[in-house]
Amino acid sequence: MWFSIRLDDHASLRPVTVLDAEEIYALLDSERERFGVWLPWMDSVRSADDERRSMAMLAEQWASLSGLMGALVVDGRIVGSVGIARVDKDVRCAEIGYWIGSAYEGRGLVTRGVRAIEELCFEQLGMQRVQITNDVDNRRSRAVAERLGYTLEGVVRRGHVVGVGERRRCSDLCVYGLLREEWMAREGRGDGERAAGA
Amino acid sequence: MWFSIRLDDHASLRPVTVLDAEEIYALLDSERERFGVWLPWMDSVRSADDERRSMAMLAEQWASLSGLMGALVVDGRIVGSVGIARVDKDVRCAEIGYWIGSAYEGRGLVTRGVRAIEELCFEQLGMQRVQITNDVDNRRSRAVAERLGYTLEGVVRRGHVVGVGERRRCSDLCVYGLLREEWMAREGRGDGERAAGA
Amino acid sequence: MWFSIRLDDHASLRPVTVLDAEEIYALLDSERERFGVWLPWMDSVRSADDERRSMAMLAEQWASLSGLMGALVVDGRIVGSVGIARVDKDVRCAEIGYWIGSAYEGRGLVTRGVRAIEELCFEQLGMQRVQITNDVDNRRSRAVAERLGYTLEGVVRRGHVVGVGERRRCSDLCVYGLLREEWMAREGRGDGERAAGA
Amino acid sequence: MWFSIRLDDHASLRPVTVLDAEEIYALLDSERERFGVWLPWMDSVRSADDERRSMAMLAEQWASLSGLMGALVVDGRIVGSVGIARVDKDVRCAEIGYWIGSAYEGRGLVTRGVRAIEELCFEQLGMQRVQITNDVDNRRSRAVAERLGYTLEGVVRRGHVVGVGERRRCSDLCVYGLLREEWMAREGRGDGERAAGA
Amino acid sequence: MWFSIRLDDHASLRPVTVLDAEEIYALLDSERERFGVWLPWMDSVRSADDERRSMAMLAEQWASLSGLMGALVVDGRIVGSVGIARVDKDVRCAEIGYWIGSAYEGRGLVTRGVRAIEELCFEQLGMQRVQITNDVDNRRSRAVAERLGYTLEGVVRRGHVVGVGERRRCSDLCVYGLLREEWMAREGRGDGERAAGA
Amino acid sequence: MWFSIRLDDHASLRPVTVLDAEEIYALLDSERERFGVWLPWMDSVRSADDERRSMAMLAEQWASLSGLMGALVVDGRIVGSVGIARVDKDVRCAEIGYWIGSAYEGRGLVTRGVRAIEELCFEQLGMQRVQITNDVDNRRSRAVAERLGYTLEGVVRRGHVVGVGERRRCSDLCVYGLLREEWMAREGRGDGERAAGA
Repeated sequence: MWFSIRLDDHASLRPVTVLDAEEIYALLDSERERFGVWLPWMDSVRSADDERRSMAMLAEQWASLSGLMGALVVDGRIVGSVGIARVDKDVRCAEIGYWIGSAYEGRGLVTRGVRAIEELCFEQLGMQRVQITNDVDNRRSRAVAERLGYTLEGVVRRGHVVGVGERRRCSDLCVYGLLREEWMAREGRGDGERAAGA
Repeated sequence: MWFSIRLDDHASLRPVTVLDAEEIYALLDSERERFGVWLPWMDSVRSADDERRSMAMLAEQWASLSGLMGALVVDGRIVGSVGIARVDKDVRCAEIGYWIGSAYEGRGLVTRGVRAIEELCFEQLGMQRVQITNDVDNRRSRAVAERLGYTLEGVVRRGHVVGVGERRRCSDLCVYGLLREEWMAREGRGDGERAAGA
Repeated sequence: MWFSIRLDDHASLRPVTVLDAEEIYALLDSERERFGVWLPWMDSVRSADDERRSMAMLAEQWASLSGLMGALVVDGRIVGSVGIARVDKDVRCAEIGYWIGSAYEGRGLVTRGVRAIEELCFEQLGMQRVQITNDVDNRRSRAVAERLGYTLEGVVRRGHVVGVGERRRCSDLCVYGLLREEWMAREGRGDGERAAGA
Repeated sequence: MWFSIRLDDHASLRPVTVLDAEEIYALLDSERERFGVWLPWMDSVRSADDERRSMAMLAEQWASLSGLMGALVVDGRIVGSVGIARVDKDVRCAEIGYWIGSAYEGRGLVTRGVRAIEELCFEQLGMQRVQITNDVDNRRSRAVAERLGYTLEGVVRRGHVVGVGERRRCSDLCVYGLLREEWMAREGRGDGERAAGA
Repeated sequence: MWFSIRLDDHASLRPVTVLDAEEIYALLDSERERFGVWLPWMDSVRSADDERRSMAMLAEQWASLSGLMGALVVDGRIVGSVGIARVDKDVRCAEIGYWIGSAYEGRGLVTRGVRAIEELCFEQLGMQRVQITNDVDNRRSRAVAERLGYTLEGVVRRGHVVGVGERRRCSDLCVYGLLREEWMAREGRGDGERAAGA
Repeated sequence: MWFSIRLDDHASLRPVTVLDAEEIYALLDSERERFGVWLPWMDSVRSADDERRSMAMLAEQWASLSGLMGALVVDGRIVGSVGIARVDKDVRCAEIGYWIGSAYEGRGLVTRGVRAIEELCFEQLGMQRVQITNDVDNRRSRAVAERLGYTLEGVVRRGHVVGVGERRRCSDLCVYGLLREEWMAREGRGDGERAAGA
């Protein structure tokens, strides 16, 4: 039992805590090769202890509503993450990020998680825009943004660093944006209560 | 939509955030007279701004699993709170506290909330003991602890301060305890997975 | 020469400083076995360096009148400690703790030290209540509280952790209290000047 | 006399200090209307005291090489600024920003300042990319980036907030990038010594 | 009762705490005119609240043995101060400062207090040198240093700021020094135990 | 290219940054024997990493105008340092310090650097007095102060610690002072603009 958002009969999403550090480290470590190709932070995942510090920091971010690492949980185990970063309360913009273990790809879990987080961003946190950024060659990740109707607004040359160890290199970064009214149209709903005031 | 624990078809429990400050301040302010008699902190609830600072601090406590203010939510509005304080990770003991608006008393909401928090304490946080403390003359609060099978372990003379403004005074404090095995027996369950290791 | 309270012709009490770390470590280390049975913090006394950090922190606590480790000094050497912890300026309650090296037991030094600290608490710091807590099986410590007329207000089950290393375990904790007027009656004195205002 | 980079016989660039706060506040205040249209931070420039805090913070940023507010000085008076923000030491990217008082526009001072800062970024700080962002409708600012050969990489919809007071609103943001080798080609030079190692 | 050093049958010296703030403020305020002429810090003594912050800070300094404000107490009331500043643990040098209310001048209290502090510096804190600095025109203060055998080592021109309000001005500062062996000779004693090791 | 003050056709002075740590460490390490005799801080120069921390701290000091380590640069390489320490904004006094590699002694570089720093102190920072302190036996350093017309105001016995490792010892310290009007007379100039107001 934990504070969570239900995604379907088996899956839910909840903020990580330090208690998740070992489980998350084990999962990331098993996907090191695969995730390292596209995710900038994979190179800094080095031990369960490091993850404990990261989880503590991410939990604090959520406490101040300035970031979130949400654990995607299926039948009690963590299988991936959907979260929020770079929350800009002035511009009312936030960035959504995600990853999922290979054994759970293809079930729509990430898409359901992103939609839950979008709702949180637009309804609770009063955002006017969310964005997804990903490597120009990361097709699976770009497909999520595109299926959800995000607009590709630009490609920032050498905009992030990816790769693990010696293969670490600068690479080009796509910026996909979704505006509040685009989200409402896509979800078929009127303006939420909280939106104007937050 | 928010990360929460469902208590029944209408009620749920979730950690507070700064976004709740105004709603909570309005509720506490409307119950100032009644809560001031027994709750030590009522005297320091002075404005929505103060509550914003409190909520920020309480959210941080939950981020580090050292405390929690859980909002009792019924059909989308906050009607009370069940939370955790004085978490002692060494002794594996935590204190459960609660309050509820007068309009929602008598429906068993507090009891359901306390049971959810107990489960969190014993199953997720690895506690060996939870306790409830309340004023020796606060019958409703003592009744919650007694109905849930807590043992009255002592009465600390002048153990807390209650009352608002000029009526502020030292008063005697009951200490009720519930051990892990007592909880398991009451709930009719064997030892949870996480208990030993957390 | 040091800032101190004289207890008798040979003994005095004074706040510890970092300069005492080595002497205190040597004393605690020589009593590790004996103290480890009842004192929760004995397990964390690991080196003179650790003690230096502890002494620095305890000296800072005294600077803010929020705690005190008082060194019991006999003819220039430290033989034990009487101090103050858990100062609650709101409730006006503080906890008195003590320990003494086996070579100096039975001379009434702890009792004299506790009485000096009680006077400090009630006269200077404006406390309304002091308490002593100790393990339910720690007869010598309980005898000190009982001889000084404290009331046993409760026994908190699994209320602290005692023991060193592998023998570390939860154990039941006695709570003894002494109210301001009980202290005045015992000491045969009227209300001190500072008491009401501090 | 101050630590500065000479731009021409009359103009130089130097990091701001708290001593500049009043002069900078007076200048910004006199251009409030004009700058407020395009610069996101103009709304937070409220008093010389505020500027003192800003200058102190910006000086600290330069101390850690994580940002710079450079004062454009002509014959001893501050007439504008060219600086560095959002330094990402991992991605080796930094953002260059600038503004100039209307009385000094059209003399190429900003362009000279930007070129000095580019050299600092690529030669001393080891950047691989610099970027300039500006409002989609801010023609003068976009013209600077374009004249210097930057590539327009994207337009982030609702990517920043501009305007002062009641006219404050979200607006679209251009992202212009210049890569290290593009800068070297433009400046007609081979790779600097420090570049690889910094 | 407080932790103190006895100076004679009526007088003692003890570290200040926040509890002394009001008494000390009243005393300083009553001597504002007189002290303001020579003491650099008199201009910043503005309210009991300010003093509370000062006392808190000075108590913390003593906690880390990096400074001390000692209250000179005669028959239970504070009449002046002898203290330690600018402790340099590397050079093993400290500065002794003092002031006394006019009603208590001429009884040798300051001299007794300075001697107690000298002993603390040389015996407990392991200093190799203590110094006294005072305004070149402050005859009474210079007389204390001279009577105790300090050597005038220099006069620093514009070495401090004295005076209150509009009369605040730079003034010349005497530096008087006393070496450890000079102190021992003066006091007729061999080397103390702690000196070498502290 | 860096923010700097030009001293002559080949030499300039600029605030250090962390990027200089390795070059400075190599230089100091090569002069360890020679500098260790007179400079108190030589004993704490232990690795390029230590220097990185020092440079970061010194850069922060300059950011707040409370200290400065200026690198003397000749044809692109660091050959020594002239800087500011112990800035007292209340007394308007600062201390100037310097050192230079043996290969660059005798060219007047230190003198030119000190004069630049004096101008910074008196014109920009509003100082009323600068001072130079050095070991009583450090002839070369004393000669710089004397050639520039400083007054020897005192010799503080055991006023600093010099020497490296086992040869570390207390030694006597000269205090040389230069007042604002003495500097103006020496430089043949009237009062600078900024002097009164800073």
